[in-house]
Amino acid sequence: MENNNKLQNMRHTLAHLLASAILELYPDTKNTIGPAIDDGFYYDFEFSSPISDKDLPKIEKKMRENLKSWKEFTSEEKSANEAKEYFGNNEYKVELINEIEEKGEKITFYTCGKFTDLCRGGHSENPKEEISSDSFKLDRVAGAYWRGDEKNKMLTRIYGLAFNTKEELDIFINQREEARKRDHKKLGKDLDLFTFSELVGSGLPLWTPKGTMMRILLDDFVWSLREKHGYQKVEIPHITKKDLYETSGHWDKYKDDLFRITTREEHEFAMKPMNCPHHTQIYARKAWSYKELPQRYANTTMCYRDEQSGELAGLSRVRAFAQDDAHVFCRISQAKEEIQKIWEIVHTFYGAFGLKLKLRLSLRDPEHPEKYLGDKEHWDKAEKVLKEIAQENKTEYFEAPGEAAFYAPKLDFMAEDSIGREWQVATIQLDVNMPNRFDLTCTNEKGERERIVMVHAAIMGSIERFMSIIIEHFAGAFPTWLSPVQVAIVPVRENHSEEAKKIYDMLKENNIRVELADSDESLGKRINHAKSQKVPYVIVLGDKEVESKMLTIEGRESKTEMNALDFLAKLKEEIQNKK
Amino acid sequence: MENNNKLQNMRHTLAHLLASAILELYPDTKNTIGPAIDDGFYYDFEFSSPISDKDLPKIEKKMRENLKSWKEFTSEEKSANEAKEYFGNNEYKVELINEIEEKGEKITFYTCGKFTDLCRGGHSENPKEEISSDSFKLDRVAGAYWRGDEKNKMLTRIYGLAFNTKEELDIFINQREEARKRDHKKLGKDLDLFTFSELVGSGLPLWTPKGTMMRILLDDFVWSLREKHGYQKVEIPHITKKDLYETSGHWDKYKDDLFRITTREEHEFAMKPMNCPHHTQIYARKAWSYKELPQRYANTTMCYRDEQSGELAGLSRVRAFAQDDAHVFCRISQAKEEIQKIWEIVHTFYGAFGLKLKLRLSLRDPEHPEKYLGDKEHWDKAEKVLKEIAQENKTEYFEAPGEAAFYAPKLDFMAEDSIGREWQVATIQLDVNMPNRFDLTCTNEKGERERIVMVHAAIMGSIERFMSIIIEHFAGAFPTWLSPVQVAIVPVRENHSEEAKKIYDMLKENNIRVELADSDESLGKRINHAKSQKVPYVIVLGDKEVESKMLTIEGRESKTEMNALDFLAKLKEEIQNKK
Repeated sequence: MENNNKLQNMRHTLAHLLASAILELYPDTKNTIGPAIDDGFYYDFEFSSPISDKDLPKIEKKMRENLKSWKEFTSEEKSANEAKEYFGNNEYKVELINEIEEKGEKITFYTCGKFTDLCRGGHSENPKEEISSDSFKLDRVAGAYWRGDEKNKMLTRIYGLAFNTKEELDIFINQREEARKRDHKKLGKDLDLFTFSELVGSGLPLWTPKGTMMRILLDDFVWSLREKHGYQKVEIPHITKKDLYETSGHWDKYKDDLFRITTREEHEFAMKPMNCPHHTQIYARKAWSYKELPQRYANTTMCYRDEQSGELAGLSRVRAFAQDDAHVFCRISQAKEEIQKIWEIVHTFYGAFGLKLKLRLSLRDPEHPEKYLGDKEHWDKAEKVLKEIAQENKTEYFEAPGEAAFYAPKLDFMAEDSIGREWQVATIQLDVNMPNRFDLTCTNEKGERERIVMVHAAIMGSIERFMSIIIEHFAGAFPTWLSPVQVAIVPVRENHSEEAKKIYDMLKENNIRVELADSDESLGKRINHAKSQKVPYVIVLGDKEVESKMLTIEGRESKTEMNALDFLAKLKEEIQNKK
Repeated sequence: MENNNKLQNMRHTLAHLLASAILELYPDTKNTIGPAIDDGFYYDFEFSSPISDKDLPKIEKKMRENLKSWKEFTSEEKSANEAKEYFGNNEYKVELINEIEEKGEKITFYTCGKFTDLCRGGHSENPKEEISSDSFKLDRVAGAYWRGDEKNKMLTRIYGLAFNTKEELDIFINQREEARKRDHKKLGKDLDLFTFSELVGSGLPLWTPKGTMMRILLDDFVWSLREKHGYQKVEIPHITKKDLYETSGHWDKYKDDLFRITTREEHEFAMKPMNCPHHTQIYARKAWSYKELPQRYANTTMCYRDEQSGELAGLSRVRAFAQDDAHVFCRISQAKEEIQKIWEIVHTFYGAFGLKLKLRLSLRDPEHPEKYLGDKEHWDKAEKVLKEIAQENKTEYFEAPGEAAFYAPKLDFMAEDSIGREWQVATIQLDVNMPNRFDLTCTNEKGERERIVMVHAAIMGSIERFMSIIIEHFAGAFPTWLSPVQVAIVPVRENHSEEAKKIYDMLKENNIRVELADSDESLGKRINHAKSQKVPYVIVLGDKEVESKMLTIEGRESKTEMNALDFLAKLKEEIQNKK
């Protein structure tokens, strides 16, 4: 935490430094405000003549010069009149000073080197020593309305990046550059995986054949892992009377996030934002003996949330998303074993993508028990089981009080992708509250009704979001088993088409997803197209190959020669092993 | 049509005959009204003392006696006063007479034999000759409010069944009895296939593991047939802005049948009642060359209709249902070939269930062109293609003007089930209008934009409805490939459990859906349970079987002996061949 404050102070100091440089280089400029932000800082100015990104190196240079003499900040309290006199012709500062005065707060000036600014403080103690001159960089020039209000004058904002060290700065810049290249919204279109329609609306992706193929492969993978552990698939409608959510507690908590419907008969319905309440009703269809438990219900199905337009982003935040959801209904004594099974599914699944996992133990906020359903004793029990699981698996984890669901504590897994970003993915919840509210029981050995518990666990979470993560993680170059097209066969000329078709048919019969690129476009164009689609293997078939029956197989990184059957065996091995 | 009128007249005549018998047997009775209905007739009476089903044979006997002297109806016009005088103490008839008088209509009395009734006519000309005395039967006694209004007095309604011949009557009675035994709502519960929850609401079935297994098997079967013909799966959200349906024309036509949503940002959304408009938006994502067509998109996904509570019935009429939908986007010149492919899929699919198909060619109503989208020329073209298909396949079909969808003519298939009932199932639509409204095109050989067409085709239609049909068709005794549990192994005593487990494991490893019935219940109870669940094969394992390694396999109709591997081979063959 302290470290974080130090970085924020550094960034704020750099905003001052930026303003000092600007005022020296462009003395007519009016400086306004300049805060620290997530990855650095900015400062808004009114320039007398426009500047652009081209001017940034010069400004940066001046900042580094000034930094050398910035040894400490001194502060001084001013009266409103003194302050306004100092900023005489700067109407922005005058406006700020008037506001501070109206609120009856102190007006303070901070000075470092030759630069003085109206400021509340929060700076590096010794900028010259604390700030490494290569750990920051001016980023870009943008327009910004004074105080964010479009009725006000448009100012010039200069953004800077700033980190503790040059190394951290470089990592951030590289990661950002990589992330731009990998943007799933762009790749999704380039690789023809999904699309949006203005008629359907934003936040509602439509899945093309290639994207749908990937969704199915992913979901089948999860299912193959669950099936081994005795899960069974169930199916549910996507709407419900509000009664279901009144019983579950979701209505009170999430009413405004639901798509709500009033039927022609004036009943209140809602589209489901999650599946657990529906699944309880499948469990509740009959009386259960303890011998029949656990009941493990899996269901990949869509959920809906009435997100605000401004918050929608590609596949990362949508209004309709498919959850690979599952609920285990079992005795509290069985919960740990069931969670351990899910633990293994999660690690096998994410391992297959080369995504490293971190674990967060999301607990209730001890200071706000009113935010959660159910009593302390049950929560204690559930949190204890989750802690034991984390400890027994000898995994590093951190506790996050306040991050629990309103009905249950969670194990949350965070995946680190190939460019070092972290994404929250799978989650396991141990829930004693839903079963209480829906009165779910079994008959135990003594013939008594015993309250059961529910384990909630989605492996991918939302398929849409998981797709966005792996598109960026792989930069669209998916492993063979997951590639919508696994092989492209490109005959050099027309007289190679027959042989190409034979190989195509042979692979197709063996369930390989293969494309024959025999259109009348040029050879170069056809090869480039296959490569731009990031097809894992491209086979160019000419005289030599037809004659020798040896295929030249271009992988993404290397070329090999192989006959068709060996190639098929290689493909099958890769698919089998999720490579 | 004439034949139908004759039957209606006969049924109406029988209502008179019933009233004549009642008034002779129970002279204090007040007769009210008695119309013909779908399977016979009824008459509502106010009795001075209650009667029951036990009295029906006596009444029927009296009807048959009276019929002998019913040679013809005579009619006579009456003044209101004359009529009221005749029905002096019958306040029901008096009410009717007053109403007729108020409307200024004629009051007519019809007499046959010794019985006279206030009536508008529509009787058999010579009841004695036309009505066979064994072609009708009194069915049951029920309560009914006078004129259907619960504020009125409760009367006694006597229902009768009536058909052209005794044979038809017997067929109806048997079919009804069979249908009762096969009722999918009852079997669905007994076989644990689906359930309803009061919290979720009526018309919204929840699918248990067994029912879900069947849904998946059915859907996979359809997919296996489609995949051979080059279909690709797509996926879509279940909601949309209303803009999509304004463009498609569904908003105007079906607004009141939609579940509509107003979002938190006050946008109007709807849950999809069908999938074609969404699928057009997947096609519309890019420009297509004629060489890339047809594009064939398959998608099993839920649709929603805001049905009235009173119209909901088990799985036959629901508010949320899964369609195994597909749309082919192609040139008009390709449509016939594509429809022929679907024709073959439909026949293979229904053939596998032993469901015979009839074909209806559903055309637009020539007298109401305003009910349909698009111009005459396009409709003519589409209807011609469908007729050619029907004719070239040398199938009997009948034309049904007015049964087309509002945007396209259809081939509708009707399946006849094992007890002779007919259900409308698959449908193929050739649509030139949706592509017009969404401006769907391809670039043709000349480099021009060419309008394409859409073929809509669901094979099962709604999975829910198809499930209701096959549950009743098979009376729950599904073929092996479709049975949620294919084999039950019942060890006689505890010392047979080990061997039973071995066979269980062997079958399970071979993807057979097998259950081990080794609970501590009695042998008889365990065998009966497996049989009541209509498991195709039950293996009881005792000393003899363990020693000889020969299994006694009880099928539904016969017993055989076989070793475990031969049995596995038999199962695999049945599953492979959809038996």
